Amino acid sequence: MLNLGLDNLILSALAEDLGTGDITTMSCIPEDAHSTGTFKAKAEGVFCGMEVLERVFALVDSSVKVTPLIHDGDAVSRGEAIAKISGPSRSILSGERVALNLIQHMSGVATATREAVEAVRGTGATIVDTRKMTPGLRVLEKYAVRAGGGNNHRFNLSDGVLIKDNHIAASGGIANAIKAVRKNAPHTLRVEIEAETIGEVLECLEAGADIIMLDNMSVDDMRRAVELIGGRALTEASGNMGERDLREVASTGVDYISIGALTHSVKALDISLKFKD
Amino acid sequence: MLNLGLDNLILSALAEDLGTGDITTMSCIPEDAHSTGTFKAKAEGVFCGMEVLERVFALVDSSVKVTPLIHDGDAVSRGEAIAKISGPSRSILSGERVALNLIQHMSGVATATREAVEAVRGTGATIVDTRKMTPGLRVLEKYAVRAGGGNNHRFNLSDGVLIKDNHIAASGGIANAIKAVRKNAPHTLRVEIEAETIGEVLECLEAGADIIMLDNMSVDDMRRAVELIGGRALTEASGNMGERDLREVASTGVDYISIGALTHSVKALDISLKFKD
Amino acid sequence: MLNLGLDNLILSALAEDLGTGDITTMSCIPEDAHSTGTFKAKAEGVFCGMEVLERVFALVDSSVKVTPLIHDGDAVSRGEAIAKISGPSRSILSGERVALNLIQHMSGVATATREAVEAVRGTGATIVDTRKMTPGLRVLEKYAVRAGGGNNHRFNLSDGVLIKDNHIAASGGIANAIKAVRKNAPHTLRVEIEAETIGEVLECLEAGADIIMLDNMSVDDMRRAVELIGGRALTEASGNMGERDLREVASTGVDYISIGALTHSVKALDISLKFKD
Amino acid sequence: MLNLGLDNLILSALAEDLGTGDITTMSCIPEDAHSTGTFKAKAEGVFCGMEVLERVFALVDSSVKVTPLIHDGDAVSRGEAIAKISGPSRSILSGERVALNLIQHMSGVATATREAVEAVRGTGATIVDTRKMTPGLRVLEKYAVRAGGGNNHRFNLSDGVLIKDNHIAASGGIANAIKAVRKNAPHTLRVEIEAETIGEVLECLEAGADIIMLDNMSVDDMRRAVELIGGRALTEASGNMGERDLREVASTGVDYISIGALTHSVKALDISLKFKD
Amino acid sequence: MLNLGLDNLILSALAEDLGTGDITTMSCIPEDAHSTGTFKAKAEGVFCGMEVLERVFALVDSSVKVTPLIHDGDAVSRGEAIAKISGPSRSILSGERVALNLIQHMSGVATATREAVEAVRGTGATIVDTRKMTPGLRVLEKYAVRAGGGNNHRFNLSDGVLIKDNHIAASGGIANAIKAVRKNAPHTLRVEIEAETIGEVLECLEAGADIIMLDNMSVDDMRRAVELIGGRALTEASGNMGERDLREVASTGVDYISIGALTHSVKALDISLKFKD
Amino acid sequence: MLNLGLDNLILSALAEDLGTGDITTMSCIPEDAHSTGTFKAKAEGVFCGMEVLERVFALVDSSVKVTPLIHDGDAVSRGEAIAKISGPSRSILSGERVALNLIQHMSGVATATREAVEAVRGTGATIVDTRKMTPGLRVLEKYAVRAGGGNNHRFNLSDGVLIKDNHIAASGGIANAIKAVRKNAPHTLRVEIEAETIGEVLECLEAGADIIMLDNMSVDDMRRAVELIGGRALTEASGNMGERDLREVASTGVDYISIGALTHSVKALDISLKFKD
Repeated sequence: MLNLGLDNLILSALAEDLGTGDITTMSCIPEDAHSTGTFKAKAEGVFCGMEVLERVFALVDSSVKVTPLIHDGDAVSRGEAIAKISGPSRSILSGERVALNLIQHMSGVATATREAVEAVRGTGATIVDTRKMTPGLRVLEKYAVRAGGGNNHRFNLSDGVLIKDNHIAASGGIANAIKAVRKNAPHTLRVEIEAETIGEVLECLEAGADIIMLDNMSVDDMRRAVELIGGRALTEASGNMGERDLREVASTGVDYISIGALTHSVKALDISLKFKD
Repeated sequence: MLNLGLDNLILSALAEDLGTGDITTMSCIPEDAHSTGTFKAKAEGVFCGMEVLERVFALVDSSVKVTPLIHDGDAVSRGEAIAKISGPSRSILSGERVALNLIQHMSGVATATREAVEAVRGTGATIVDTRKMTPGLRVLEKYAVRAGGGNNHRFNLSDGVLIKDNHIAASGGIANAIKAVRKNAPHTLRVEIEAETIGEVLECLEAGADIIMLDNMSVDDMRRAVELIGGRALTEASGNMGERDLREVASTGVDYISIGALTHSVKALDISLKFKD
Repeated sequence: MLNLGLDNLILSALAEDLGTGDITTMSCIPEDAHSTGTFKAKAEGVFCGMEVLERVFALVDSSVKVTPLIHDGDAVSRGEAIAKISGPSRSILSGERVALNLIQHMSGVATATREAVEAVRGTGATIVDTRKMTPGLRVLEKYAVRAGGGNNHRFNLSDGVLIKDNHIAASGGIANAIKAVRKNAPHTLRVEIEAETIGEVLECLEAGADIIMLDNMSVDDMRRAVELIGGRALTEASGNMGERDLREVASTGVDYISIGALTHSVKALDISLKFKD
Repeated sequence: MLNLGLDNLILSALAEDLGTGDITTMSCIPEDAHSTGTFKAKAEGVFCGMEVLERVFALVDSSVKVTPLIHDGDAVSRGEAIAKISGPSRSILSGERVALNLIQHMSGVATATREAVEAVRGTGATIVDTRKMTPGLRVLEKYAVRAGGGNNHRFNLSDGVLIKDNHIAASGGIANAIKAVRKNAPHTLRVEIEAETIGEVLECLEAGADIIMLDNMSVDDMRRAVELIGGRALTEASGNMGERDLREVASTGVDYISIGALTHSVKALDISLKFKD
Repeated sequence: MLNLGLDNLILSALAEDLGTGDITTMSCIPEDAHSTGTFKAKAEGVFCGMEVLERVFALVDSSVKVTPLIHDGDAVSRGEAIAKISGPSRSILSGERVALNLIQHMSGVATATREAVEAVRGTGATIVDTRKMTPGLRVLEKYAVRAGGGNNHRFNLSDGVLIKDNHIAASGGIANAIKAVRKNAPHTLRVEIEAETIGEVLECLEAGADIIMLDNMSVDDMRRAVELIGGRALTEASGNMGERDLREVASTGVDYISIGALTHSVKALDISLKFKD
Repeated sequence: MLNLGLDNLILSALAEDLGTGDITTMSCIPEDAHSTGTFKAKAEGVFCGMEVLERVFALVDSSVKVTPLIHDGDAVSRGEAIAKISGPSRSILSGERVALNLIQHMSGVATATREAVEAVRGTGATIVDTRKMTPGLRVLEKYAVRAGGGNNHRFNLSDGVLIKDNHIAASGGIANAIKAVRKNAPHTLRVEIEAETIGEVLECLEAGADIIMLDNMSVDDMRRAVELIGGRALTEASGNMGERDLREVASTGVDYISIGALTHSVKALDISLKFKD
């Protein structure tokens, strides 16, 4: 399948890191030197980014060979081998940091998502991401969330409707906002709206919302909202969910829990490349 | 000054987040609606990114007015106002998330850097960054490190020499590697080389290295290395410095401490935009 | 508001038409010559494209002044003035053709849409477009459809779900296809599916489709389908609607009628620029 | 041969239509599903665009195989097969619409051109296009005109001289305009000029024009102009030629007839892709 | 007038020279330092590039003020002032080298052209350039040739026909080549063909060439060719004209002399920027 | 290794030279014509640019075969064969000029560099380039300098520090400038500074400069400066070195001689492509 976007992203990252060329490598490594090595996890987590790892080196030098040993979404233990690599030493060294920066970040997202998914396993709640993402890396972060077992919320402002407090204020209230969106947005989109109180939940329900976001509510309020809605709209818990007890939130019966911290505060999974002695 | 790079980065981020347009805002906010609001810190930290904040809205709509209330590098308390904004509601809402994603990330980097800088204050050590950065955001992250009080290491592979273990192996030893780099790299660059043992430190010193990186050494070994070098080369402590006691490391007398975690594991500083009631 | 996409489109069109420069104009028109003129409709229709007209000349030469006389969506009669223009003769002549090519095309789309909208006025049916559009001009064509009084269907493959016959075949039937989409696509999207027979309509309904596309059906079948569905899903008539009696189709009670011909077979609205004698 | 321009055009069209990905296909079609199908004409006309059809799928997924059954410029009857396709179902479905949008448009241009060429067959007149083209698609439309049997006029403003009424006005008359162009334009270009009356034709002839465009003239005037010119300049009939009797125009003895409608008002040739049962 | 191409060229040159930023200037010049200076010629020649000089600094920093003191095409003496500059010191220093590199190159082209033009002054011959140009700078070099008093030959392979020896060989002789081009190329282009002997000149003439290039001929052969042609085609002397006696060549009566050395072997005109003491 | 930059440069050059297509070649050369030919030097010099030659044709048409006969940096005599070429005639003809323009320019740089290197052979001086380069071609020119036997100075403003007279003035003197740079620039860079007098040399030395540029000094002053510095800093002779006696300059004991004329005033090495009879 077409991976134009991915290639452009990697080429930009390589341009950023290579500048006008890897002066150290070009100066001291012979052009015909050949190396083999292994990418290993240096911490426990969920790996993500194998295609990225392969494409980085394919773009640096198509004669570098990357051999995957695991799959995206696999749990890894400290010291576990992720992939083998062999090829011209210059090419491997020149692409190493970009590859690591990308897969460590993606694996960090997948690891955090997996933890959230595990926290709500067995409840009916689905973990989803948000638009609180790292600029430029959204495609990769969205992918990593799925690799971690989560689902994606809308990708951007054009492929989903989400009416927030400021929209409500500026359009004259909940009913008006929903009515305007129904009239103007494509009929292929559901209408989601944010509610901060039980009163607002009821107002949204009456106005015909398809999805009601329960924003920064207490567990008790969320539970009551879910009961009141009674399946007439989908429900989504939101608001600092990265610092909440996810199992408790899920126990309220909400359909979705959206967590910004999955992607706005990523802890890289430590991965290294060691050349064989 | 020319900010072509910054504008392109912001325009890409806007394109990523806007897709074919902000369907919610366009559907329910009147074209002539006007709003005012305030960006506020929702946690304690160091702010960074005012020019980015201003450029995002300048690029979305030049009629939006952003009024800075603080400067990059300023410490902020929870609830502190960062900037005022006023202008067409549609434009503010369409640029809000991209602006927040960028300044929250930059402020996260500045905050972590400031903590490291404070930890070594009064010692002779300088905190520097690494190339373990978020792809696409290097210019901003390098800037945020400086805003936090740190210094920058080389920007990329073309503007600094750093001979690592794999280079040494592939070029036939420390002396050979340094000699090759001296011959081929521009004379405008210092030669830095990685050493993992006291023996390697001595070898690097003898081969005429300008900077010796003390990689993953114990505090005792670092102290001994600094003494042995005796000012004949600059010293840089490196290797998981994000998890070390920085004051203890600095006490060994090293000139620089480079910390990858400043930029590979960024915790976003929480910032929000609230419209005035 | 940000019009980056529009500017890029216009700049590409200008580059395409100017090549390395307007050799005729540069050769025979003095640099300081000044002209004024009027854009006039040479046929009856619906005008669309005023912002495009203004941006073309703003990009060619910011000293050219365009004065709009009507608005997008306004009906025009033969000979009616659309806009005045004045400025350096070289700049006006160099931008003229690109401006005309764009607004004639957009006005052609708006005109065809208006005709369709008028044909169903008073029924409950809404006219929508399709993805059968001119490559590169989708943003403008979608806009022209709205200017003509129609609504937009999904913009592209990523912001709407539409399960077609080939999808159904390849995924093992209607129920399987809908189930898979429900599981994997963002919950912010409605699920639309194509049905060619009453049997398929019932199957789609049972499988929980949000929108059922009645594809290439007779008027009788459409009417029966609408009755059977009874409001449990939205309905959309589709399939060579450009050659159907739209009022008759609308009379079946369908919610939407999607027409590819609005944009795949555009008849330009004739518009000319005449310099004042 | 280099097809950079074509690839970029196709990649832009794919980006426009795919957005962040084909959500329907990715959600319900298994990654390993394979399909075969046939592109068929659903109306009579002249086909054009085989290389485009092949490149679209080559760029989407190089493992998709397209087998052409006819050539550009071939007449097709309703139901006639144009090409076979086989490969991963996901890739075929994701590229289908872009491929169809392009070849339907190109075939529409070729079909209209063929009709015009047939209308003047046996006369000495050659059908040529204009710059009244679809922005962004000029390379393809110029090509389709040739596939239909027509010739191309200048590609853009930099590779041909055409002095129009507004140029004449702004440069002080026909003689001045031609003199200025002769002096300043490359000697590799012929000088073409527009004439609306017999008087102007004589003036152009005297001033040494290489090509005289007979603009919006009656058949009688055209005939008289051709006689007066007597081979001392080439002649080109122009002005709403899409609505004129082309054979009658050709009978006046003009060398060229330029027709904007070939490309500004394209009726797409209906083509479909059906998967094999 | 639109200067998109120029801006892009300058922005690329700035990106090439600035890399990730002017480290020296940023490190030692205060942000608020202000400077004034003068661009002066350090050798005799013809200046060209004022708009480029102005745009470089406009793009670096719109607050820098450039005041032109002379015009493109003006002769300058050693030490003559070309333009004044004032503004933020950082901005001036960061743009200085790119500005100088461009205007020194353009002035070098203009100077060489002026010398050639002077050499043939009073004869009927016109000096023209070739496609032997510096990749990426063609627009500027073509412009500089005109500033020096020369005319431009075709800009590139698409806006002029020139049949060379290899074309003749591959298409079956002079008559065939001209016939094929007449049939296939737009009628707006003249047909130029290369002849190396008097025999070939006659053959070209008979085949109806519009322009005959006399390639690498002796002065006697050129003179004879011009006589034989007798005005039935334009003539152009070509082939190492940078090393020929141009006045002697012109004396043969040729219409054009094309000189590759004007642009393939440019000697930069020395220009410097000195800050005021 | 990644050659993204090179490919983009070549593709831009091809776009510049091909415009909308090679009208002559397309009009008169049959699509299936095949040619073979040889690139030959028509003057004595040093060849450079084989990879560029190969990539130009690889990008034009991957079926063209280029067979190198010599290597970059090899001396060539007049008439010596450089490479063979065979493939579709259309593709060879369309890529010919761009290939020649690039390799003639690169070979010109290599030839001039070789002359300078030979002039100082046996002394301790190394020839280096400057930033006085052709905009857009810096990567190629830097490479050609190395092929000629020279070394590279800094690539651009971000990968080397060079404090010039204007920096010194604007930052309050030599000591201040060096101190500021030491504090703010990455520790991986040496600090170079320009001195025009012996007094300035001493001041730079005292302030701890790593490299002192002896700018426009007499041979006697250079010799004295080298003696005074006594190895405590590297020395670089600069300033119109293209017009100086390089051997005499080298005899002063300077470490580096930087020459702008290597790249700002390039005389193309004449190279031609002749098809086999």
